[in-house]
Amino acid sequence: MKIAVLGTGMVGRALAARLSGLGHDVTVGTRDPQATLSRTEPDGMGNPPFRTWATDHPEISLAPLGEAAAAAEVVVNATNGSGALATLEQAGAEHLAGKVLVDISNPLDFSQGFPPSLFVKDTDSLGEQIQRAFPQARVVKTLNTLNADLMVDPASLGAESSVFVSGDDAAAKATVTGLLISFGHTDVIDLGGIDTARGTEMLLPVWLRLMGALGTATFNFKIVR
Amino acid sequence: MKIAVLGTGMVGRALAARLSGLGHDVTVGTRDPQATLSRTEPDGMGNPPFRTWATDHPEISLAPLGEAAAAAEVVVNATNGSGALATLEQAGAEHLAGKVLVDISNPLDFSQGFPPSLFVKDTDSLGEQIQRAFPQARVVKTLNTLNADLMVDPASLGAESSVFVSGDDAAAKATVTGLLISFGHTDVIDLGGIDTARGTEMLLPVWLRLMGALGTATFNFKIVR
Repeated sequence: MKIAVLGTGMVGRALAARLSGLGHDVTVGTRDPQATLSRTEPDGMGNPPFRTWATDHPEISLAPLGEAAAAAEVVVNATNGSGALATLEQAGAEHLAGKVLVDISNPLDFSQGFPPSLFVKDTDSLGEQIQRAFPQARVVKTLNTLNADLMVDPASLGAESSVFVSGDDAAAKATVTGLLISFGHTDVIDLGGIDTARGTEMLLPVWLRLMGALGTATFNFKIVR
Repeated sequence: MKIAVLGTGMVGRALAARLSGLGHDVTVGTRDPQATLSRTEPDGMGNPPFRTWATDHPEISLAPLGEAAAAAEVVVNATNGSGALATLEQAGAEHLAGKVLVDISNPLDFSQGFPPSLFVKDTDSLGEQIQRAFPQARVVKTLNTLNADLMVDPASLGAESSVFVSGDDAAAKATVTGLLISFGHTDVIDLGGIDTARGTEMLLPVWLRLMGALGTATFNFKIVR
């Protein structure tokens, strides 16, 4: 499939590399490709600059957000949550219409320090905000409950764990579930409509505290039943 | 140990019966024992009246909240979340002082129907509200993330799953962890201070949606790592 991954951080890179490795035609979308490629310093999280990664992945192209989205069948929102709506606006509602829009972002608010709180929760969710803002996109919320490495290689944990999908479009969820299975996910739980993203986005607070208690981000939820 | 279980619903009954079965001296606390025993109809959840259950558990006594708490070393808050603070107030701060106070309640708000939202979340929690209201109690939040039957018999799931403890008092957490292990819990994760109850209370929204998606309440979270 032709897939656009919007976002050049660790989540975007992990998804783009994995999808490309599986044979998909992947373009990473960013606001200003020139600016993205011109950075030579590690980002705020200590990750190597994008151009280092891009050099290692010559098969993955970089394009402006709108161009990347326009050409894709599936668009992945791998931005940070606080910038998600603005990024998608820049990608263009007309380029998202009819597309499967995979939303991986979390509504984290770091303004009061760590751990972050959520800027939308409980009676609404970022997934729903995105679906409302882009009513012609077929939004599927998934993969926001585990770290980037495990998103694309859950088998590395050595035991089965679970991922969730939320969305109003059954065919879009089936497409996304197929991609998740191709990553190695063996327990994909369909929670229902996009409003169920309230549940998975509200997993972040315990996820963050588990990371602190366990001293690692290499863990995932398994729903034992 | 002498243990008071405050609450006569399914959670209170399950905890009281299991603790008694393990040899503890258990008293169930309720606002008005006479009124509790006089009910002959099933409760709003369709559970048999308390006196039916009490007849099957003659070794467990029933007492007013204050009397039950006063005599106990460990007090279990098994009320519903919306009534928790008022119930504990009636039990009496002086009867909770110095005690291990196990808080199992969830801040569920059913005023807008199902699924409920949370009346406190993210930047505060019911566990913290209880600790602030009763500063001399040694509050440990736990067991609020799974159903009553699994709380006291997790092995019935047939595979290991996880429970969490949150609290500011290390000795109180050790006492509670010992009780959890005696129930059969083999993966008790200490998340840290009582403020980490924000994380576990915010698991309820996904728990409720999982119950809908899976068609059962017989499931639990396992943290795979």
